[in-house]
Amino acid sequence: MTSTPPSSPDHGTLSYEQSGVNYDLIDPLKIAAQRAAAATGAHLAAHGFSEVPASRGESAYVVDVGPFYLASIVECLGSKSLVADEMQRLTGRSFYDAIAQDTIAMAINDLITVGATPLVVQAYWAAGGSDWFGDAQRAQALVAGWKAACDRCGVAWGGGETPALAGIVEAGRIDLAASCTGLINPKERLSVGDKLAPGDAIVLLASSGIHANGLSLARKLVERLPQGYLTPVEPGASLTYGEALLAPTMLYSPVTEALHQAGITPHYCANITGHGWRKLLRHPAMHTYRIHTVPEVPAVLKFIQHHAQQDDLEAYSTLNMGAGFALFVPADQAEHTVAVAQAQGVRAWLAGRIEAGPKRLLIEPLGLTFGDDALQLR
Amino acid sequence: MTSTPPSSPDHGTLSYEQSGVNYDLIDPLKIAAQRAAAATGAHLAAHGFSEVPASRGESAYVVDVGPFYLASIVECLGSKSLVADEMQRLTGRSFYDAIAQDTIAMAINDLITVGATPLVVQAYWAAGGSDWFGDAQRAQALVAGWKAACDRCGVAWGGGETPALAGIVEAGRIDLAASCTGLINPKERLSVGDKLAPGDAIVLLASSGIHANGLSLARKLVERLPQGYLTPVEPGASLTYGEALLAPTMLYSPVTEALHQAGITPHYCANITGHGWRKLLRHPAMHTYRIHTVPEVPAVLKFIQHHAQQDDLEAYSTLNMGAGFALFVPADQAEHTVAVAQAQGVRAWLAGRIEAGPKRLLIEPLGLTFGDDALQLR
Repeated sequence: MTSTPPSSPDHGTLSYEQSGVNYDLIDPLKIAAQRAAAATGAHLAAHGFSEVPASRGESAYVVDVGPFYLASIVECLGSKSLVADEMQRLTGRSFYDAIAQDTIAMAINDLITVGATPLVVQAYWAAGGSDWFGDAQRAQALVAGWKAACDRCGVAWGGGETPALAGIVEAGRIDLAASCTGLINPKERLSVGDKLAPGDAIVLLASSGIHANGLSLARKLVERLPQGYLTPVEPGASLTYGEALLAPTMLYSPVTEALHQAGITPHYCANITGHGWRKLLRHPAMHTYRIHTVPEVPAVLKFIQHHAQQDDLEAYSTLNMGAGFALFVPADQAEHTVAVAQAQGVRAWLAGRIEAGPKRLLIEPLGLTFGDDALQLR
Repeated sequence: MTSTPPSSPDHGTLSYEQSGVNYDLIDPLKIAAQRAAAATGAHLAAHGFSEVPASRGESAYVVDVGPFYLASIVECLGSKSLVADEMQRLTGRSFYDAIAQDTIAMAINDLITVGATPLVVQAYWAAGGSDWFGDAQRAQALVAGWKAACDRCGVAWGGGETPALAGIVEAGRIDLAASCTGLINPKERLSVGDKLAPGDAIVLLASSGIHANGLSLARKLVERLPQGYLTPVEPGASLTYGEALLAPTMLYSPVTEALHQAGITPHYCANITGHGWRKLLRHPAMHTYRIHTVPEVPAVLKFIQHHAQQDDLEAYSTLNMGAGFALFVPADQAEHTVAVAQAQGVRAWLAGRIEAGPKRLLIEPLGLTFGDDALQLR
């Protein structure tokens, strides 16, 4: 898994920061917004409800509405649509069915981390002008992919917005996002990490590729490839880099729903998105996360690691490296958890355990250690 | 109210369609999406729930979750941020506090039409690059305005997304949207129009100006104004056209919540946004809507009507013309409804009534009639 193809021409390592997103500029706003948002939770009391304070900083916001908890979220696809646009130019085929699934996955895979059953998805499709919608093949692919993802997750597509935002969204482009609302029902399904403890097993669910995080890096990398997006992702293979990037994000809610049916309630879940495996350190509790088994790395991620000349430390702290979602479950339910996931068609591995100790992530097969300072994103 | 200032130079009438949004291109996608979405409602049965079919086509999607109804929505600000950007360039002042309120109002004022109490708002702020967030004055205004609107409506700001989308959102611009989740509780508050009937009174709530619809037209109009956004909105007045446009949208949930406290349940509500007063014809039922009293038209809307050389038919079918929200209530509760709104600081008028008859809107003081074909937007 750590073997790499022969070295590419030397351009030096390409890190995520080099690919164009400067968090130093975004973070002050984000912190100000989080503080202001936290002060609004008290409004719920006037309606007879209350927030679940532990959900502040988690992937979805949770409100106690009495008989159950209400969870909600809005999530953005990010820049993956630029890859779909370029691939449509190169191949004539629309990949908007795939990125529709990505967009829904961004919302649903976050919502389920708190134990919620996703119920309703709303579409947010903001185009650079009315003419975006005039490409019927692309528009139909977007609709079909969106519906198929809703079908797979058993959610109702409630509606949405399709604004034409000339002057805000670039001509010929679209800003795709999804909001999702769900219920934690019964309330015992709430998983905000209060039960997370040494002894818990770490089960990893397979990713299908890059998913929808790391795309700025992946797009930047194209400049280094003589054939660009049409470069075969493995020697002799027909699958191109562009096609491989556009493998849609796995939808994990069928697994979390099946776990509930099987009587398994995760103590915590982490959606492995931006910041790669550092997301395993997401919960604020002080534990050591020891990984003894790492999943096979999808070809497209091996390809990126190789051409971006990233070492394992950089790759695992940026990309999902084959693990799209982490379930933290009681040790005696770990094997059952793996079996339930596999039955849903999602490969899964009993990958490690939580131990008492300083907050850090040890990926033993690769000799990697991430400390408590690796993830400052709450 | 129908008197106009002296005529401006003759450029001919400027209609909404001329201002750049071509619904002919968007509508086929919208219809395909609505059909696909409708087919997903059945998924809720597997979770023990069901959709409220009448909410399909309404402003918010409603699910019956047993003890109450769940309502959700995502809404976009539209192009008003372009006016804020230009006014910041001209005056040095950020108006992002105002357009933050607009964005929340777009979501909340739609959500409450079905009888929901808004509980949680999520922020969607997609910038053209990380550097957007580097303007601290603007970023702080956005946060402060967002929080103030949440405070006014008693909703919890759950969180959100602040992506930097270089290549999708234009450099220096931001795409603002909000999702909102609420509950209809008790369930008797559901107002999807099944009780709407001849004899009901039409109560109109005052708008504060253009709100967030008609901005494409308003921006286009600037080309006709020698002083552009700095043109006084009334002769001798210090308020400029740009400032007047940026008066934030009224938040109507304090009124609908106060109505509930007062024991008044509207039979139906219409948020008067795009398509202006044609929104009074929103419900599919076949009734005649007779208006005997029209609100005072805000100066900025008089200004637009005058300079765009719109007749009343065009103006009332495009802009809110002083009425931001319509409540359809039992006739014997109309005066009480007006009083409850006024007590919340929102001017209100008993403006008309529903009668048996062909589907049409009669605005008697202006001699206007809109037929059933005036609004094909469900």
